[in-house]
Amino acid sequence: MQTLLLTKEDVGRLICMRDVIAAVEEAYKAFNSDQVVQPDYIGIHLPPPRGEVDFKLGYNKANEVISMKASSGGFIDNPTAHGVPSGMGTILLFDARSCALNCVMDGSLITGLRTGAAGAVSVKALARKDARKVASIGTGNQARMQIRAINEIMTIEEIRAWDSHPDTLAKYKADIESEFGISVVTAHSKRAAVEQADILVTTTRGKGSVVEADWVKAGTHIVAIGTDQRGKQELDPEIFRNAKVVVDSMAQCAEKGETWHPLNRNIIARDDIHGEIGEILLGRKPGRENDDEVTIFDSTGMAIQDNLTADRIYRNAIDRGAGTFFEFFRS
Amino acid sequence: MQTLLLTKEDVGRLICMRDVIAAVEEAYKAFNSDQVVQPDYIGIHLPPPRGEVDFKLGYNKANEVISMKASSGGFIDNPTAHGVPSGMGTILLFDARSCALNCVMDGSLITGLRTGAAGAVSVKALARKDARKVASIGTGNQARMQIRAINEIMTIEEIRAWDSHPDTLAKYKADIESEFGISVVTAHSKRAAVEQADILVTTTRGKGSVVEADWVKAGTHIVAIGTDQRGKQELDPEIFRNAKVVVDSMAQCAEKGETWHPLNRNIIARDDIHGEIGEILLGRKPGRENDDEVTIFDSTGMAIQDNLTADRIYRNAIDRGAGTFFEFFRS
Repeated sequence: MQTLLLTKEDVGRLICMRDVIAAVEEAYKAFNSDQVVQPDYIGIHLPPPRGEVDFKLGYNKANEVISMKASSGGFIDNPTAHGVPSGMGTILLFDARSCALNCVMDGSLITGLRTGAAGAVSVKALARKDARKVASIGTGNQARMQIRAINEIMTIEEIRAWDSHPDTLAKYKADIESEFGISVVTAHSKRAAVEQADILVTTTRGKGSVVEADWVKAGTHIVAIGTDQRGKQELDPEIFRNAKVVVDSMAQCAEKGETWHPLNRNIIARDDIHGEIGEILLGRKPGRENDDEVTIFDSTGMAIQDNLTADRIYRNAIDRGAGTFFEFFRS
Repeated sequence: MQTLLLTKEDVGRLICMRDVIAAVEEAYKAFNSDQVVQPDYIGIHLPPPRGEVDFKLGYNKANEVISMKASSGGFIDNPTAHGVPSGMGTILLFDARSCALNCVMDGSLITGLRTGAAGAVSVKALARKDARKVASIGTGNQARMQIRAINEIMTIEEIRAWDSHPDTLAKYKADIESEFGISVVTAHSKRAAVEQADILVTTTRGKGSVVEADWVKAGTHIVAIGTDQRGKQELDPEIFRNAKVVVDSMAQCAEKGETWHPLNRNIIARDDIHGEIGEILLGRKPGRENDDEVTIFDSTGMAIQDNLTADRIYRNAIDRGAGTFFEFFRS
């Protein structure tokens, strides 16, 4: 039995953001078509200065692939103490027809890519067609990934960016302007960034509200990325009161997404949540219905996004003859 | 970062049963010394003729290793339809200090080995010192593995074996006699096998009681292997009424081991369970206290057994320069 091994470099060469966006759309649709088995993930927390390692499993009946992603993060001493990044990842792909191990690939890049793509998928479904200005609260790696993905599906005229670290902000401006040729205005306040935005992207992984309700103008689409665990928060829960709220997974977002906060404070009820994004992509529920509504996409991240993104990479590798085959046993 | 790849053949060459028994003893002691984080495993069930794939995670603080075993079984059409075995396995070992992926090894052999070793560890702790006769109810792969392991730690004078399939039974007799030189009597009934045994090993994975209480003579040690899921059963629950019951994990055995049946029928209460085997190995609780008591070891299998067995194989490979290094990324 041959197993394909793919390095981080292979993975980077084998996928473009356009493919990832297509894979994530397919994932959301599969999720809302009863094609997905996605057990609760398992996390192991290590004591500081170490972080956490999560194991996320997804089975997609549509392509008969079972994926397992082991993903670590927050090991802040790794670069100095162990000479490796603070977060790493590994993905296994099994052929669900036999459970043969088809592929072991480095998983460092996929979480970032599929999370970026998630934002872009929501922009396609929920942002105004004339949206041009993006506000970015947070300017780290995922903030860049969001721009990389959104830039694939619309023309971004200007980005207003804010970060609590001025150095990070300056570097973001330089990088985005040189990589994408999009003008970045470094905002002197969060409010200044938010109040002119057509699309607001939050990636701070913050632990308290960073965006106030009265800064958000009518017609804004909010991509809420940073909250994927209980305890994290980025948005004033009041923003949810009159917004059209769309989630990746109702179960996850109500339990540990940004949506938990307004639910917990009874600002909205579960029934006020418009739906899961897969339902919109499948045409079962409307997306944006007018230019004035505020739309929120709460992304907590799902194993099925990894599954379809990694499967796309694997199939690209097979098509192009990339990677290294290894025989774990003779059959 | 270098990751060691080990084939099934490598794994087979790198470990002997004596090492596995030591690893499993160490695992049980670690489990009862608050050194182990072992989340509930995740199982994905596929529709027939496919089987199940389980993902078992274990973190051992003592050696700072995190293990993940993906293990499939019951894919009965695999040999004919896909040219692969009906069950396969893969184990990942992470250095818990950094979460670097140290090793990817074939996991086909480890479950069988560590389960065999579990029985032997219980024999050391619980069987009579003058035990010589083993009864084996069930004569498949795990029945052989039990003999292979028990044979390492005591002298087996005779095996009385029974199986519902006469062909399997005959093959077992031929194989055991040639491999170990131990005389095997093929019993004409289960009762005939059981009633003379000093040690009774059950590996049928049956779904109803196969051993009656009044067949079991005083002083017998019972190694109950076959029940690791709700719905499986091998022993008349009445056997538990006056026996010394030892489990690998109280939580697992009460929930889905052989011990669930007498608990469910109120034949014993949780407090009647003598303890976990690690407590005996650590000297916190007595093992066998006289030659008349019937002892039962209920083994449901724990991720920490895989962890320590796989780690032993990995360390042997490093010591002997075995395996193939692969660089998933440059650090």
